[in-house]
This record gives sequence, structure tokens and C-alpha cells, in this order.
Amino acid sequence: MKRREFLTVTAAAGAAALTGCGQQNGAGQAPDGAPAVLRKKRTLKMVTSWPKNFPGLGMSAERVAQRINDITDGAITVKVYAAGELVGAFEAFDAVSSGTADLAHHADYYQQGKSKAFPFFTSVPFGLTAEELAAWIYFDGGQPLWDELYARFNAKPLLACATGTQMGGWYRREIKSLEDFKGLKVRMPGLGGEVMRRLGAAVVALPGGDIFTALQQGAIDGAEWVGPWNDLAFGFHKVAKHYYYPGFHEPGAALALAINLSVWNDLSDGERKLFEDIANRECLYSLCEYKVRNAEAQQTLLKEHGVSAKPFPDDVIRELGRVSGEVLEEIGRADDLTHRVYESFKAARAKYMTYAAISDEAFIMARRKVLGGEG
Amino acid sequence: MKRREFLTVTAAAGAAALTGCGQQNGAGQAPDGAPAVLRKKRTLKMVTSWPKNFPGLGMSAERVAQRINDITDGAITVKVYAAGELVGAFEAFDAVSSGTADLAHHADYYQQGKSKAFPFFTSVPFGLTAEELAAWIYFDGGQPLWDELYARFNAKPLLACATGTQMGGWYRREIKSLEDFKGLKVRMPGLGGEVMRRLGAAVVALPGGDIFTALQQGAIDGAEWVGPWNDLAFGFHKVAKHYYYPGFHEPGAALALAINLSVWNDLSDGERKLFEDIANRECLYSLCEYKVRNAEAQQTLLKEHGVSAKPFPDDVIRELGRVSGEVLEEIGRADDLTHRVYESFKAARAKYMTYAAISDEAFIMARRKVLGGEG
Repeated sequence: MKRREFLTVTAAAGAAALTGCGQQNGAGQAPDGAPAVLRKKRTLKMVTSWPKNFPGLGMSAERVAQRINDITDGAITVKVYAAGELVGAFEAFDAVSSGTADLAHHADYYQQGKSKAFPFFTSVPFGLTAEELAAWIYFDGGQPLWDELYARFNAKPLLACATGTQMGGWYRREIKSLEDFKGLKVRMPGLGGEVMRRLGAAVVALPGGDIFTALQQGAIDGAEWVGPWNDLAFGFHKVAKHYYYPGFHEPGAALALAINLSVWNDLSDGERKLFEDIANRECLYSLCEYKVRNAEAQQTLLKEHGVSAKPFPDDVIRELGRVSGEVLEEIGRADDLTHRVYESFKAARAKYMTYAAISDEAFIMARRKVLGGEG
Repeated sequence: MKRREFLTVTAAAGAAALTGCGQQNGAGQAPDGAPAVLRKKRTLKMVTSWPKNFPGLGMSAERVAQRINDITDGAITVKVYAAGELVGAFEAFDAVSSGTADLAHHADYYQQGKSKAFPFFTSVPFGLTAEELAAWIYFDGGQPLWDELYARFNAKPLLACATGTQMGGWYRREIKSLEDFKGLKVRMPGLGGEVMRRLGAAVVALPGGDIFTALQQGAIDGAEWVGPWNDLAFGFHKVAKHYYYPGFHEPGAALALAINLSVWNDLSDGERKLFEDIANRECLYSLCEYKVRNAEAQQTLLKEHGVSAKPFPDDVIRELGRVSGEVLEEIGRADDLTHRVYESFKAARAKYMTYAAISDEAFIMARRKVLGGEG
């Protein structure tokens, strides 16, 4: 047997083993009735909401695809399409829903026009941290509700990426009090934008690539993007002097791997677990990457550009919090499923906050007391 | 072909595919020279440091084994041995080192007699949280140093489990000041115990199963175990009234999957990535499980047993912190490798603390300001 033939045959056999030759799907048969061992090599199309090679989110999607290729030894090959290559950034989920693509790496909250339940699975103002969101998904009812939501759109969701707590944005003027939001032209998408609007801001929708020029020309007064790592790359510090924290609106943004439901159902039990493990491991990995790269970019901003981030004033935080609660209560009544998602989310948040007060938070505060700013 | 034969053949083919039939290990050959496709099904022995079905740590080891079995469709079967079944709890690592076992699910700091570098990969007083430890392992030099340490013992380490921040322990008397540590008989293992000893405590070594009786009979005045979930199961609240936080000594205990180096080198590139993804995903999953179960147990302790945890007083925290720094500095000079581990760990901690102050921590504080105790 020539080397090329050998590779093809063994890869096909590998696919057969992974698609279940027994215990899990019972019959040693592929769903179409052919013996599993004859099952062909498959190529899956993954569309994403990110530009080609986009640091953080884009590379995270690439890693998921690469791990699937490597671990199945090519029996399942995932081909990644950047935003715009097959469909637009905001159409990735629709492409999976319709079967145009098999997988999408995207943010749920882009779909809030379809259901108000979606943002709860990405991040909502004063919501869950990345670890808390994972806890809710795994143990407190999150995944079944998420499955129910996605099933309505012919898809299955897996937790696949996390950015950690974001920053509160770049502003051309200092934010000293609530008064400063009146008439402020600000770029903040989603529910955070709605909160800003209720404080009197004029909220503007802009893709990331247009923010710099808009800030530079004074078309907007402020904008949030992600955090130091991604913000530094866009050079916002050159056109807006005031960098605020915390990112109250996205405390732990999670990104999802959406899988077409027929593709998911066609996977063996072992393959489904493999997809879960690859996606979920990448969630931890990307969270760590953001932690490390943001810390490095923060130092660059401070040492090379003299940018020292400032906290939102106390009364601003309190009002942002009050209005955020109001917004969540309202969307939490949108429909039956959104209501169940909201109630489940709220109960999980209360539960985690109670224990956090005596564990992680208490430790972090104690450590800062002991080690101070110098670490 | 009979069903039984079919299963065996396809499972073997699956193993072949997973062990690399081409690109990754280059030759389409198993290491012994036989064609990869003929490679046999393998069974790996996993020893653990945990009692049979031990909630949290023990079940976490079981899940890793089960995922390997399921995803490889039995091509690699992992058989789990509880502490004492094949070797004792503290001999799990030695068993992997000598090849008596293939895998061990254990805590590195049990091996501190072999090298002072080990505790840094589990948890040290005022050290890293679980997420920070993962960040150090992935991005800031942790894994190469860990690999170097394990290689000296013929093993390879993977991050496989995390408990999150632990509690500070159960005490029969109130801890009001530093004076109260003088002569206190306390069960606290590892470096935390050394810190307590320097504050004047008499530190006692006891396995978990002996703590209850020792507290009840007054043989000891205090003991730390894990957190509410595992502590409630032992009933410590019945024999010690004062429950303290935070667990300064183990802010984010990580557990490792140790793999015999020959077994690891014998895996294909794809199989190594599979082991990484399964182990690392379990790290996130177990961290979430501890978060959820500890929160539930905290409520049970409060509502059914009237136990309200108390913070260590401020001056106690400061002195615990000062002495912890002293202890780490000392062991950080033990030998060349430990010194490099310590310096790398310290730089990572300083880096993460700087960005945490304006991201996670700032958000968590803002959220508590807004939502208060009721979540």
C-alpha cells in the first residue's frame, strides 16, 4: 500500500471508530445504515464573526478547528471562514441554522433580535464572571435552557471561549458624575448601550474598525471595545485620553460554538464528548490568554503611553447598577423562555455571590492587603 | 462478521487512527516498528490519592478516565484505582514514576519531600487563584518548568482539577488576635502549617478521616480540610463552632494528572492533545463544581446548623501574609529549579494582580456595591 493510500484508509477507520462502532450508538451503523467502518472522512465548515487572524476571538476559533483536525487525525477536518468569507459577521448563526455552515464561532448577543434570551449566554450588565457563567451552564440549569433556545434555531451550543471582564471604554472627556452622560455620544452595543441611553447618552452603533476615526474626528465622545489587548491594537489611546473601568456591561463575555443540529445528532456519543472537551478547554485557555495579554497591554499603555485607567465614580456605578437591574427585569419578561432563563440566571448569580464573599473575593482582598500594588 | 468481532476490529482501527497514522509521528509506524494500524487496544492504570467515590477530587479523576474511554470508544481504556487499592494515597506519583501505574490523579504538594518546587503547582500561601495558576501554566512559563520538574521523575504533568479558594478551617475557640495562635494545636498540612507553626501553633499531621474524632476529643483545637462541601460531609460543625475564611494557605488548589513519561512519549500527537483537552476541561468543570457545591453547603451550614463563617481579623491576615512571604522566600532558595519556579511564579502573580485590580476585582466590588448581599 502506498503511503497516500495508507493515510486515507486509516483516517477513515479512525472516523469509524470515533463515530461509534458499538456501545454508544448501539448498532455499529452510521445513521444512513452503512456500516460505521465504511463511513467517509468528513469536512465541516466553521463560519465565524471575527476578521481573519483576529487576536483573541479569531485565533480561539482557529484553535478549536485545529484541535478537532489534530485529535481526529484528519478524520474530521474543520475549515474556518473569517467574517465575510462565506457569510457576514452577524450571519454566522443563521448559516448554521440553515445548514449553509456546520459550525459557527460567534457571540450569542448578536442574536438578541431573535430572542431576548440570547444575551444571558454572552454577558449582561452586572451579570456573571466567566467562571460563574460556566458554573451556571454546567451545574445550575444553564445548558438545558441554552439547548432549548438553540433547538428553536436548529442548532446546539457549546461554551467555547471567554474574554474575562472587559473595560468600561475610552472617553474624550472625564466622567466626573452622572451629569457627564447627558448628551454623550457613545459607542456601546447591546444592553450596556441601552443602560447608557437611559442615563441620557446618545448611543451610536459602529463596527470596531470605524471607532478610531469617529473618536478622532469627534463624531463620538466615547467608545468601548474589549480590553487593553484589543484596544491597544486599535490605538484608541491616541484619540481619547480617559480609560475607565470596570466593564460593568460585559463582566465575563462568553463566546459559543454553534453546531447545526443535524450535524450534532449525526455525531457519535464519543465525538460529541470530544467536541465538548475541545470547546470547553478552549474556554479556559482563551480566558487565560486574555488575562495575560491584557495585563501586558495595560503595562504598555501605562509605561509607553502614560495611560492610567480610572474607576467610574461611585455614584455612577450605583446608577449604572440600578438602571441595569431595570433593563434586565424588563427583558426578563419578554417571553416564557426568556423569563425562565432570566430567573435561572438570577438565582445562580445570587448563589455564587454569597459563597464568593467568603472565598475568592475574601482571598483576593486579603492578598492585596498583604502584597499591595507591587504584587 | 459477528458483532463482537466487529467491535474489536473497529476499536483497534480507532486506536490506530488515534495513535497517528501519518502526519504527526511521521512514519505511520507504532514506536515498536509495527504498522500503526495493527496497534493493540490499550488499558492504562490510573492510581489516585483519593478514597473510592470521594466527592469532588475522586469523582473528578473518574470523569477523566471515563472521558478517555468514551472518546476513544474503548481503544484506550483507563482503569481507576482509589487510594490503597494498588498503592497508598501518597505513593500515587511514585507508582507513575516507576511504571507500576500509567497515570496518577494527585496533588503535587504531597511530593514536597522530593523537591520544594512541587507546592507551587498545587497552591502556596497567598499564591495564585485557580484561573491565575492556569494562566501561568499556559502562557507565562509554568508548563515548561513543570515538565522539567516531572521529567526528573520520569513523568509528564497536565492540569486536571481545581478546588477553587478553600476555607481557613474549623476552630473550637474564637481567633481574636495573633495571641490566640500561641500553643494552638492545629491540623494544617504543607506550607500553611509551617506558617501557623511560626505564629506559635503546634501543628499536627492527621489524615482527613481522623480529624473529626481529634476535634471532638480535644486532641486538636482546630483543623482545615477543604471547604463547605467536603467539610459538611465530615460533620466538623458538630465539634468546632468557629469557621474561618479565607483559606489563605490554599487560594486555588490545582490537582494534576501525572503520566508516565514512556506512556506519554508513546502517544501520538493527536492522543497527547486529547489527553490535554480532557484533563484541562475537567479543570474548569471541577472548579465550577466546587463553586456550586460549596455555595449550597454554605447555605445548609447556615440555615440548618446556624454556622456563619467569620473572617480572620485584619492583623492576623497581615501577619499570616508577612510570614507566608518569608516561608516562600526561604523555600524559593532551596535549589536551582525551585528558584526558577519561584521567580516565575512571583512575576506571574504580580502581573495578574495589576490587571485584576481594574478588571475582575473592580467588577466584583462594583457588583457587590450594587447588588449587596442578596445577590
